[in-house]
Amino acid sequence: MRIDIITVLPEILESPLNNSILKRAQDRHLVEICIHNLRDYSSDKKHRHVDDYPFGGSAGMVMQCEPIDRAITHLKNQRSYDEVIFTTPDGERFSQPLANELSLCENLIILCGHYKGIDHRIREHLITREISIGDYVLTGGELAAVVMADAIIRLLPGVISDEQSALFDSFQDHLLAPPVYTRPADYKGWKVPEILLSGHEAKIREWELQQSIERTKRLRPDLLED
Amino acid sequence: MRIDIITVLPEILESPLNNSILKRAQDRHLVEICIHNLRDYSSDKKHRHVDDYPFGGSAGMVMQCEPIDRAITHLKNQRSYDEVIFTTPDGERFSQPLANELSLCENLIILCGHYKGIDHRIREHLITREISIGDYVLTGGELAAVVMADAIIRLLPGVISDEQSALFDSFQDHLLAPPVYTRPADYKGWKVPEILLSGHEAKIREWELQQSIERTKRLRPDLLED
Repeated sequence: MRIDIITVLPEILESPLNNSILKRAQDRHLVEICIHNLRDYSSDKKHRHVDDYPFGGSAGMVMQCEPIDRAITHLKNQRSYDEVIFTTPDGERFSQPLANELSLCENLIILCGHYKGIDHRIREHLITREISIGDYVLTGGELAAVVMADAIIRLLPGVISDEQSALFDSFQDHLLAPPVYTRPADYKGWKVPEILLSGHEAKIREWELQQSIERTKRLRPDLLED
Repeated sequence: MRIDIITVLPEILESPLNNSILKRAQDRHLVEICIHNLRDYSSDKKHRHVDDYPFGGSAGMVMQCEPIDRAITHLKNQRSYDEVIFTTPDGERFSQPLANELSLCENLIILCGHYKGIDHRIREHLITREISIGDYVLTGGELAAVVMADAIIRLLPGVISDEQSALFDSFQDHLLAPPVYTRPADYKGWKVPEILLSGHEAKIREWELQQSIERTKRLRPDLLED
């Protein structure tokens, strides 16, 4: 899988993409992540502007059509892309099923919005999918792109070990994960549930399932309705 | 405002917290962000372990009580905290109203989960608030912490300029933002709506409001139900 991220602030993406699990996934060639500085596609060679004032006199700056069109066209000329994604708070809600779906793609472009937004014509003509990671506003689309990349890449075969398998995560079976405990069994009088110390595997698995169901009913009953 | 982030992977947080708007907010002393490596609080001075196998024989590793307790206690001994937040997919959903609420706090701790989870006793005894940035699973809580910090910090007075004021963002008034456009008015035959070129300010504001309402009705009718 290959993910191309187009941004005006490539430096924000550096540490999340080049550490821990995402670094190892790239080192093992399980995914290729390419960062593109949108300013490299500016027609203004001197100041490398990629934004301008909005028509209609409202506040803020708007990212222009031309550099984005040039960047996306440049990439599309080299390979075909499954989706050209724009991260925006008013997009389709990112979710585990959507992460699963996107993890099956071959090539993805993620365009990070910034300033007051991008020229709407880009959204109408070049973007195939608009995605929001949640109902909140961020200073830019970079963090949304990293969050999506992380959720997608960890699902690729071989990226995380079998024992941390994504199959047992919250949401994959419409249930929240059960509570987990580790040593010591008694910490300052806070005790681990006795069943977990019993060694009776069948009963432990049953307890975990009950806990999952109980937690889901209490905290996220909506997950059970689907 | 001060935000303390406790993590086993401090390096992931570096570039998002030290660039662009979050860097400027810290440089201007509008916010103080302190990163704490959980391993510094390990009682295992040699290997600096902070995790162990789960009771009950399930897969993965679990973050232990003691280092987390020590880290949080160390911070609490120095100042009082409004909330001790744990980032977890089964927490309360992060949203713009919650970002607004947290932006009024003085001191926040954010504990980043990792591996298969944290010992549940920490959640019962030390965490005051469990928050999820969305219904998807990430490789760790670091990105969730950065997303929350970003959404909160940009709301602090003076962090973003008046003209990019957060008041006009999507969600703040239960409406999605209207489409925006910038020069050129005609790009490859893709045209800006004529009303925006008219110079008639009252009509433009009316058109923008109509667009906001129309987009919200079509894309996110749930926002209008509150």
